[in-house]
Amino acid sequence: MKPLIFISNDDGYQAAGINFLIDTLRPIADLIVVAPDCGRSGASTSITPALPLRYHLVRQEEGLTVYSCTGSPTDCVKLGLECLLPADRKPDLVIGGINHGDNSSVNAHYSGTMGVVHEGAMQGYPAVAFSLCDMRPDADFTPLAPYLIDITLKAIAMGMPAFTCLNVNFPLCKRFEGVRICRMAKARWVEEVAKREHPYGAPYCWLVGYRECCEPEAEDTDDWALSHGYVAVTPTTLDNTAYALMEVLQGAF
Amino acid sequence: MKPLIFISNDDGYQAAGINFLIDTLRPIADLIVVAPDCGRSGASTSITPALPLRYHLVRQEEGLTVYSCTGSPTDCVKLGLECLLPADRKPDLVIGGINHGDNSSVNAHYSGTMGVVHEGAMQGYPAVAFSLCDMRPDADFTPLAPYLIDITLKAIAMGMPAFTCLNVNFPLCKRFEGVRICRMAKARWVEEVAKREHPYGAPYCWLVGYRECCEPEAEDTDDWALSHGYVAVTPTTLDNTAYALMEVLQGAF
Repeated sequence: MKPLIFISNDDGYQAAGINFLIDTLRPIADLIVVAPDCGRSGASTSITPALPLRYHLVRQEEGLTVYSCTGSPTDCVKLGLECLLPADRKPDLVIGGINHGDNSSVNAHYSGTMGVVHEGAMQGYPAVAFSLCDMRPDADFTPLAPYLIDITLKAIAMGMPAFTCLNVNFPLCKRFEGVRICRMAKARWVEEVAKREHPYGAPYCWLVGYRECCEPEAEDTDDWALSHGYVAVTPTTLDNTAYALMEVLQGAF
Repeated sequence: MKPLIFISNDDGYQAAGINFLIDTLRPIADLIVVAPDCGRSGASTSITPALPLRYHLVRQEEGLTVYSCTGSPTDCVKLGLECLLPADRKPDLVIGGINHGDNSSVNAHYSGTMGVVHEGAMQGYPAVAFSLCDMRPDADFTPLAPYLIDITLKAIAMGMPAFTCLNVNFPLCKRFEGVRICRMAKARWVEEVAKREHPYGAPYCWLVGYRECCEPEAEDTDDWALSHGYVAVTPTTLDNTAYALMEVLQGAF
């Protein structure tokens, strides 16, 4: 029997990225997809406790089932893993993506694609997020195909330690220099607020801006790998305790 | 001059928790508050790139300015820090809360209160999240007052290393056993989907469930501290690289 892979994303079930992923992985796995019914970029690991979640079966074929859901990416994973899996089967892997846009460095904190794999990892499954540094709806995912298959098969074969997942980002180029195992680059977003005025006079704004890397010289980061043409694989933990700070604080309280 | 503290939350600017925090800290600091215009529990570190953000000045007094904003908690911080600070002043501290409900263990990943301090830390400020293990709108925050002042003053005096913040949770009791510096307990939510049927027949569901601790015996976790009457202070990092996994993966790719 083929492995079973659970897939979600934050661009919605109709996005090109998730459908390229589906087409690429169908030959090697059975797929169950539960994805947002519209774009949810920037959803992070948010959940929707205050509103009902609705879902619809939108596609059912041999080895492929696709649901759309009104919730966030993380809601989709919770709903899917608890209620929509095939009888008597658990996924061998949870995948988020392929995202249209870069989820490296601090973008991982805002990313709904990472929300998918955070939840997958919390529920005890190996989990991998795939993102391409190209936000365009018609981004070309073709160069990713062999890497998607290779990383997927390795993730299933190796498994992952509890509470960890992989954040995989692809640079925007036709051919990649190879794969680098990276740490998350420290960065922050700047000049993020574009003010406008409503026709009746009240101010409003759009979130815009750009990411400023705090350590552009460091060669072991995802940021560096992507800007040098490498596929960046960043192992990620859900335990965000700042262990180095614990002893300092012990003395202060 | 008093220190300047920037405050936001995820329960909205009218919630009892944030207003108790404001009343408690006014004697020791100037406060600028930019908080959601309604409840945004579970918002995580989400942002709203696809919709305009609107904001309104709702209160202005000596040493206190309060704005409401249509965005997520993280949006509020981005907007506030870039556009709504008093002239020529930067905050000495960013605070999220006081949240109505527990943000310890994996709840931190879903928490909009943590979204506030994640953004504050990313922007380079010391940042502290306060949460009380009581979701009721009329929760009694009185026992927290001396701890809020003490932790706030210490956080300002000590500062924090780049990319870190504190996640402070208070158990639901009248008197606390003291403060414990903790790590985040590993846990996951279970039995989370309650199915219902729409009057016209389509299924929908509510997110419910409870958190199941994976390591209830461990005495160094926030979960343990809270269940034994202690205030849990969990130092938190924004660098969620799984460093221990890097070497393992180097060999695999």
